[in-house]
Amino acid sequence: MDLKKVIREIPDFPKPGISFKDITTLLQDGEAFKHSVDLIVEDLKDKNVDIIVGPEARGFLMGTPVAYAMGVGFVPVRKPGKLPFETESYDYGLEYGTDTLQIHTDAIKPGQRVAIVDDLLATGGTMIAAAKLIEKLGGEVVSMQFLIELEDLNGREKISKYDVNSLIKY
Amino acid sequence: MDLKKVIREIPDFPKPGISFKDITTLLQDGEAFKHSVDLIVEDLKDKNVDIIVGPEARGFLMGTPVAYAMGVGFVPVRKPGKLPFETESYDYGLEYGTDTLQIHTDAIKPGQRVAIVDDLLATGGTMIAAAKLIEKLGGEVVSMQFLIELEDLNGREKISKYDVNSLIKY
Repeated sequence: MDLKKVIREIPDFPKPGISFKDITTLLQDGEAFKHSVDLIVEDLKDKNVDIIVGPEARGFLMGTPVAYAMGVGFVPVRKPGKLPFETESYDYGLEYGTDTLQIHTDAIKPGQRVAIVDDLLATGGTMIAAAKLIEKLGGEVVSMQFLIELEDLNGREKISKYDVNSLIKY
Repeated sequence: MDLKKVIREIPDFPKPGISFKDITTLLQDGEAFKHSVDLIVEDLKDKNVDIIVGPEARGFLMGTPVAYAMGVGFVPVRKPGKLPFETESYDYGLEYGTDTLQIHTDAIKPGQRVAIVDDLLATGGTMIAAAKLIEKLGGEVVSMQFLIELEDLNGREKISKYDVNSLIKY
């Protein structure tokens, strides 16, 4: 199955010159969606994963079905103010200014083997933030999984110390 | 399995007097998470569901694994500015002011049988908005599924014309 065929490209979104990769056309195609989740599960199956982490909000879309299919738990990484219990925070640089991600302090137990799942690997900034949060709690990041990788943005270099897999490359 | 035992109650969040039901403790428990998804899938199994709709962002957490387990597609309903293609919008009243939800205009095909999945049934406002969007596109809402129902808020009355199922009641 050629997954690229079910990704819709939207020119000039969110700003001029950007060709946005719209994954909603893949998600609404039951066969393509199931196939994508199964490919990630297949890649993770020998990595002894204890728990899946997914960044808000599109990371929830792929991360929770992967966790369900593997029979493991799911931990959300979210923007400030969204998680109701005690949190660890990590600030990271964006093109303009900084952003912050948070995780519940009891979300990962020391020694747990964690796979991060997200829709898109762009510059890798979100991934570094998620990995730092997991490592602060004593977890080990054993894999990073993406539906789409934008190769020109070199995100893979920034996360080269981790195991990385992506299903669709542009 | 008593699912209430894996829900964490957070007093005075997001404001004084509210006891917030934190579902992250359920999600991170692989067995409880799988059991919850399976209970929703079981309730939906004879309803000939073509597609699952979930509202941003916590609706993604339960909705996508339900869609995956059923082998059907998933459609996100989101806040304005998040969906990149053409959208239908619906404005609905909140305690203070109004809010808007959007759906892609080609997300639902006329005649499709749709189940909406969300983490929480409170006043039912989000559900009415999601149902109106689905019906604008010609879909039929055949079920609404919730992890948690806050019975005191009477949301079930507002959506009484629909099939409603919730797993944990407070």
